[in-house]
Amino acid sequence: MSFSFGDKIRITIFGQSHSEQMGVVIDGFPAGFEIDEKKLADFMARRAPGNDEFSTPRKEGDKVRFVSGLVNGTSCGAPICAVIENTNTLSKDYENLRDIPRPGHADFAAWAKFGTNRDVAGGGQFSGRLTAAMCIAGGICIQLLEKKGVYIGAHIASVGNIKDTPFDSVNVTKDDFVGHKDFPVIDDECGELMKEEIRSAKKEIDSIGGTVECAICGLPAGCGDTLFGGWESAISSAVFAIPAVKGIEFGAGFESARLCGSENNDEFTIAPDGVIRTVTNNHGGILGGISSGMPIIFRAAFKPTPSIGKEQGSVSLSQNENTTLTINGRHDPCIVKRAVVCVEAAAALVAANMML
Amino acid sequence: MSFSFGDKIRITIFGQSHSEQMGVVIDGFPAGFEIDEKKLADFMARRAPGNDEFSTPRKEGDKVRFVSGLVNGTSCGAPICAVIENTNTLSKDYENLRDIPRPGHADFAAWAKFGTNRDVAGGGQFSGRLTAAMCIAGGICIQLLEKKGVYIGAHIASVGNIKDTPFDSVNVTKDDFVGHKDFPVIDDECGELMKEEIRSAKKEIDSIGGTVECAICGLPAGCGDTLFGGWESAISSAVFAIPAVKGIEFGAGFESARLCGSENNDEFTIAPDGVIRTVTNNHGGILGGISSGMPIIFRAAFKPTPSIGKEQGSVSLSQNENTTLTINGRHDPCIVKRAVVCVEAAAALVAANMML
Amino acid sequence: MSFSFGDKIRITIFGQSHSEQMGVVIDGFPAGFEIDEKKLADFMARRAPGNDEFSTPRKEGDKVRFVSGLVNGTSCGAPICAVIENTNTLSKDYENLRDIPRPGHADFAAWAKFGTNRDVAGGGQFSGRLTAAMCIAGGICIQLLEKKGVYIGAHIASVGNIKDTPFDSVNVTKDDFVGHKDFPVIDDECGELMKEEIRSAKKEIDSIGGTVECAICGLPAGCGDTLFGGWESAISSAVFAIPAVKGIEFGAGFESARLCGSENNDEFTIAPDGVIRTVTNNHGGILGGISSGMPIIFRAAFKPTPSIGKEQGSVSLSQNENTTLTINGRHDPCIVKRAVVCVEAAAALVAANMML
Amino acid sequence: MSFSFGDKIRITIFGQSHSEQMGVVIDGFPAGFEIDEKKLADFMARRAPGNDEFSTPRKEGDKVRFVSGLVNGTSCGAPICAVIENTNTLSKDYENLRDIPRPGHADFAAWAKFGTNRDVAGGGQFSGRLTAAMCIAGGICIQLLEKKGVYIGAHIASVGNIKDTPFDSVNVTKDDFVGHKDFPVIDDECGELMKEEIRSAKKEIDSIGGTVECAICGLPAGCGDTLFGGWESAISSAVFAIPAVKGIEFGAGFESARLCGSENNDEFTIAPDGVIRTVTNNHGGILGGISSGMPIIFRAAFKPTPSIGKEQGSVSLSQNENTTLTINGRHDPCIVKRAVVCVEAAAALVAANMML
Repeated sequence: MSFSFGDKIRITIFGQSHSEQMGVVIDGFPAGFEIDEKKLADFMARRAPGNDEFSTPRKEGDKVRFVSGLVNGTSCGAPICAVIENTNTLSKDYENLRDIPRPGHADFAAWAKFGTNRDVAGGGQFSGRLTAAMCIAGGICIQLLEKKGVYIGAHIASVGNIKDTPFDSVNVTKDDFVGHKDFPVIDDECGELMKEEIRSAKKEIDSIGGTVECAICGLPAGCGDTLFGGWESAISSAVFAIPAVKGIEFGAGFESARLCGSENNDEFTIAPDGVIRTVTNNHGGILGGISSGMPIIFRAAFKPTPSIGKEQGSVSLSQNENTTLTINGRHDPCIVKRAVVCVEAAAALVAANMML
Repeated sequence: MSFSFGDKIRITIFGQSHSEQMGVVIDGFPAGFEIDEKKLADFMARRAPGNDEFSTPRKEGDKVRFVSGLVNGTSCGAPICAVIENTNTLSKDYENLRDIPRPGHADFAAWAKFGTNRDVAGGGQFSGRLTAAMCIAGGICIQLLEKKGVYIGAHIASVGNIKDTPFDSVNVTKDDFVGHKDFPVIDDECGELMKEEIRSAKKEIDSIGGTVECAICGLPAGCGDTLFGGWESAISSAVFAIPAVKGIEFGAGFESARLCGSENNDEFTIAPDGVIRTVTNNHGGILGGISSGMPIIFRAAFKPTPSIGKEQGSVSLSQNENTTLTINGRHDPCIVKRAVVCVEAAAALVAANMML
Repeated sequence: MSFSFGDKIRITIFGQSHSEQMGVVIDGFPAGFEIDEKKLADFMARRAPGNDEFSTPRKEGDKVRFVSGLVNGTSCGAPICAVIENTNTLSKDYENLRDIPRPGHADFAAWAKFGTNRDVAGGGQFSGRLTAAMCIAGGICIQLLEKKGVYIGAHIASVGNIKDTPFDSVNVTKDDFVGHKDFPVIDDECGELMKEEIRSAKKEIDSIGGTVECAICGLPAGCGDTLFGGWESAISSAVFAIPAVKGIEFGAGFESARLCGSENNDEFTIAPDGVIRTVTNNHGGILGGISSGMPIIFRAAFKPTPSIGKEQGSVSLSQNENTTLTINGRHDPCIVKRAVVCVEAAAALVAANMML
Repeated sequence: MSFSFGDKIRITIFGQSHSEQMGVVIDGFPAGFEIDEKKLADFMARRAPGNDEFSTPRKEGDKVRFVSGLVNGTSCGAPICAVIENTNTLSKDYENLRDIPRPGHADFAAWAKFGTNRDVAGGGQFSGRLTAAMCIAGGICIQLLEKKGVYIGAHIASVGNIKDTPFDSVNVTKDDFVGHKDFPVIDDECGELMKEEIRSAKKEIDSIGGTVECAICGLPAGCGDTLFGGWESAISSAVFAIPAVKGIEFGAGFESARLCGSENNDEFTIAPDGVIRTVTNNHGGILGGISSGMPIIFRAAFKPTPSIGKEQGSVSLSQNENTTLTINGRHDPCIVKRAVVCVEAAAALVAANMML
């Protein structure tokens, strides 16, 4: 089912951009785990818009309320259901989009699939807003993973053509994570250049794409499974659920396709602690679908936000004729900053299932 | 379960590189479909090694035998089971790999997961040989899809730094497919350069990576689903099941992360036949996880074959000490040629499930 | 996952007896269906306790609130989430049960599985109260099925040793259904005897078991699947999710085990309308797991409510010693009346998945 | 998918009565388990027909061949595939059934679902013969369970109106199992009466139904899950996959529906070994879907074999008119003896998944 993910800890997301509530049910979560609600709120805040110059000015509270599954804040073995109220949803803003689909947006696909029954308001269930529900579940899984010594962190790897320093794929640990920063990059000078790029796009009532790099640290070797049950299959199917992702690569990724085996292969060695590790990490911590014990490293490509202020060619669905569309300028010129935490959440959903 | 894929047509793969048989069970396949066994054999032959200078010299027959699910060659509604005999498997060749894992290969992961219980011979269930089972199922699905007007074709998009001409992502049709060619590229001159690159790697007892581009043509708009049920999630989870894949991108993919929205958005227009189409296809035929009616276009990155003849550093699993490894030179210097049909098969498994 | 059911329309239930809310997410429900909320409320009211002399005096509103998936009361293709607030939950009442499990109740199993992390209040997720969530989903599916000409009705088939007239398994139609009655039996005189039996149990601060018979009418022949995908497997797995069910039988059921083939076989005949039907219906509308076009008929056995006022032997979990337990007399002396609608709901979940 | 069962150890069955092979793929089976093939052959022999006066005279070898998943007889973590060759299949015998469905048999349902595409020979995938594949998987799971101290045994509980002594539901252990007997009953005198009943049915070219009782011993308390994930749901969905099963009940089952709570409730007590047990076992070892630590006890009702020698009324599918049918007398007058091992297999599939 398309709104569910996971086979051990299984989440089911519900909600639309402007439904009364959105939320997530988490079935299979172990009993006896105390959820740190403050920490979860901090995690959610990293996704929430409206708190800086770069994101959409809509205010979304994203306050998480648990309606089942906890007794005094501790999981009891029943499915955990957590919800967010959708407030201040101005559905009228979207009425003009009912007839003219935004280029690059899911509007047209929703119409093709559901016709007039689709929920036009705020993009319905296609809205990036549903990543909030994914972040609730992912944020809880991250807490569970930390108890097992597994840590997940992501950063903005690029905005347009500006690239952040990548993680050291061999040595990265949780101490290298930058999720706490207002602008989560490793190299802050690079971050300033990125901000300039975003400001420039915003000024042009345009948008700009980017990439996010994520590391999963502390995994033992031997987790995961072969074929369709491998880490790459699982992570990619979770990460592509985040709207705007158009590519993903693990380790050396597309670069490895340009290399010789003698360049790309990662030699094994006995680490000082007696554990077998690799000297390099072009394999991104995954061999044969299974964790190698090295950090899992992947990068996701986000296309630029499709909602831009510039006039664009489109069609009238009712008239079946060409027309143009100018969208109200209230949009997020670069979603990559907010996407960082979504990528962490997606990775956490996978890792929690693999570890259980 | 890691050896199964699909929720409407569900395949389950079994076998190891050197097990008596390998095969696939296909549950949910519609009754009354006559399988063209000659066509399937041609499809399988594209994956089979041993038929040119570039692939591994092992002879693998890959003759498909149907043991259930058909009556006089036509599906009867029972699960279809098809098998391939594994013959001429020289398990002794692999005995020296029992203690020293090949860099870049799943050997180490198999040991980490299964310890001494793993099947060392030929890489066990981690072997690329299992893609033959995927190709049986994919080859049958391709026949089913063609009956519905959906066509799938892939080509070698690059070998090392040599790039083939890409598909015209807006206008590609089945007439542009090159799967029938001995060396499946669009630009044969480019193909000659690729061959030279492969010969060069082979001469160096090394290997070289590459990419495969795939197009799914003829899909109506509105197929697929949102969130975890989208085309990108489904295709990526199938394609990463092919060993050696380390990256995937849809439409403009990673390039879209460098673009502005005004560059990346694909404007809608009424095509001459009255159907709504897009002028460009940076979205790769997928919007919000759902087919837009444009060709679905994606590229997969294959790392170079890890088994190379050059001496490499590794470890002795039994002694837990560093050592070196030199692998018998009988390996495939570039798997990308044979991977083309595997990518088509993976895409077909997804498309058949989405269309049913 | 244990709180989910269905592969086409998939429901996920959440909540505990005393959690803030309980509810259900329905994924895969077709878009464009207008839910009749009044009709659903009537359906829910049949399960709600507190409205007659026989059921538990606790007041449960069971007012359904839709928080996602509908636009103006019509399904939009997003998962439907509907919730019920849990009000007036007196968790203190259950504190004395924390240490001493009720004989026949899930208390002990919850402790064995979850230990001190279990939710003691009201039986946690083991409470019969969660059938309300099942009824929301089932009630919606019943509306969907009616649009397809499929009707589901159940009645109290027995209380203790008092048996209602069974459905005419060959000719039953929706006109024979009795769900609208205060006491849903076919033979009202028989119903009076049942009531007397229940009053008698109540007076003895005891409880009494019973059976429910259910019919699914209007199904075409050929729905369902073989082996694990048959109607009997699907219905039984849904019906046993209702607490207190200890047996199920289809058609002649256990009686057929006493018969000869010549007695039990249902001969085929061409009905006046030209359709093939059977003369008798010992097969209960299911042959080889698949619908035969005859009414599907099954009966479920409900054990007596375990919570009774009489003193019973039990153990102290903390002291690991024998003790006795006397439960506060506020219990439902016979749940069968309220179970009728739950059985209909379970059957509807199955039928909606089979028909889609 | 209807030919698959289980979420941890997942089996997928393939084959038809007269397909070249039938078999099963077992995914998720733990690595490092040595399968006792002799013991498995003995298990299979209990299901195989043709070895006494009561079963169908068809010879079925049912010799199990493992084609993948084992290395030197020990599981390696890859899916285990085991097959049985279908030999001596006289498909011509069934040609006369193509037009006239047997009363009580799946013939008609197969036609309703698949029309002329169905596999008529031997009942296709609806044949009881597919229980052999279930027995392969179940027989392997039984071996796995025994390593964990869990034992499963069933016996013929009744044939027609003749009833065997039931298991002592409180004290039953593996020492009470009778699967090794030629005629698996607890009371052999009773068994003689049953045989007489079967001989009588055979003489009348008729058939007779019966019941099977099954016990699962050695389970710890706390296994299983709530709602749709409970033992009753799981066992019933597996057991109803065995053709001819029309009813199932756990513990006191339908009898409990006639009892008062004070009669039906099982009081808890501290057993001499300090473990909490119940004094009686009307709950059949399952409370709230979860194992209580007492033996799990259930009974399944088998209808009489539909294929009988007596003339019966039926229809011509091609002519859509009434006719009569006389089936060649080669049928099994009572399948209950052979069903005993199938019930054990179904129970083992569930228990292995619950225990893993």
